[in-house]
Amino acid sequence: MIDKLVHRPWRVLKSENILNIGPWLNVRQELVELPSGKQISTWFVLDYPNWINVIAETKDHQLVMIDQYRHGLGVTKYEIVAGVIDQGETPLQAAQRELLEETGFGGGEWQEYMTLSPNTSCQSNLSYTFLARGVERLRAQEQEDTEDINVHVMNRKDVYALLQQGEILQALHAAPLWKYFVENPI
Amino acid sequence: MIDKLVHRPWRVLKSENILNIGPWLNVRQELVELPSGKQISTWFVLDYPNWINVIAETKDHQLVMIDQYRHGLGVTKYEIVAGVIDQGETPLQAAQRELLEETGFGGGEWQEYMTLSPNTSCQSNLSYTFLARGVERLRAQEQEDTEDINVHVMNRKDVYALLQQGEILQALHAAPLWKYFVENPI
Repeated sequence: MIDKLVHRPWRVLKSENILNIGPWLNVRQELVELPSGKQISTWFVLDYPNWINVIAETKDHQLVMIDQYRHGLGVTKYEIVAGVIDQGETPLQAAQRELLEETGFGGGEWQEYMTLSPNTSCQSNLSYTFLARGVERLRAQEQEDTEDINVHVMNRKDVYALLQQGEILQALHAAPLWKYFVENPI
Repeated sequence: MIDKLVHRPWRVLKSENILNIGPWLNVRQELVELPSGKQISTWFVLDYPNWINVIAETKDHQLVMIDQYRHGLGVTKYEIVAGVIDQGETPLQAAQRELLEETGFGGGEWQEYMTLSPNTSCQSNLSYTFLARGVERLRAQEQEDTEDINVHVMNRKDVYALLQQGEILQALHAAPLWKYFVENPI
């Protein structure tokens, strides 16, 4: 028996955009009132666009992984393909576009696999994971000149080993990969 | 055979703090140069303190979950205990303090379970998950007056059901819980 939760939202008394960085990031400062009547004068919410990522399986059941340098943490690690949903795109369209651009892979059968919040406390956006089965190499990568992405078509057991070793650091990638290996064991 | 990755860091040519919000958040704007020589004039990095969270199992193998309203996404969902590492604390001390404050539970055997990045691309901090086995209720909750947390001691199968239903939205909580249920199946 799972308790039904009571939703106890805060009331927004004042909201101000204090930083606006193109389509990438908007920082909102809010004065909020809690159900108890207590006020918090400075709560910060980061408004990003929604994001997508893709677990892509080839016809012979390998996984299409990438690596790239990530400047926030300053690391170069294995990842799944990920990106931002552009204006006017559905999450699925964004996921298919990003897989094709970053790896040259496409086709196959696609399903929505998981919805995650990067941070329920201070971000308003969501991240949608898709599972694509039976993808194949359709063309060469098409990288933007600020991208530096390597593609690795890997055996499932090697990706699982990376996961177990803690080498898939990004939470938004680790969560769907752990779920995938529960449901599709080695 | 897993390819060894080549680390290709960007060079920081200029770095400026453009927003500083107490100990909570610092936004850094950087001018960077890629290995290709291409420059990006505005890369933003969010500097938060490191975070912790806890999968806490009681002596009779139930899980100590909480719920609270989260204003970034505007939802009230089931979560594991989580918080910020205060200055001078080790990650373990922070995890034990947060579990005790937010739920009144403590004791038991603790292990470091998983290290994740909330976002390798734009955040510099890490999140450490601990697994605590054999915890028990030691005292009442000690909430700050801006906290509004309910405690739920739940059967493992109910937590797994929430996970499968996508009700554990926060990526930093979903990833360690999926791993936990792989290694400790129902």
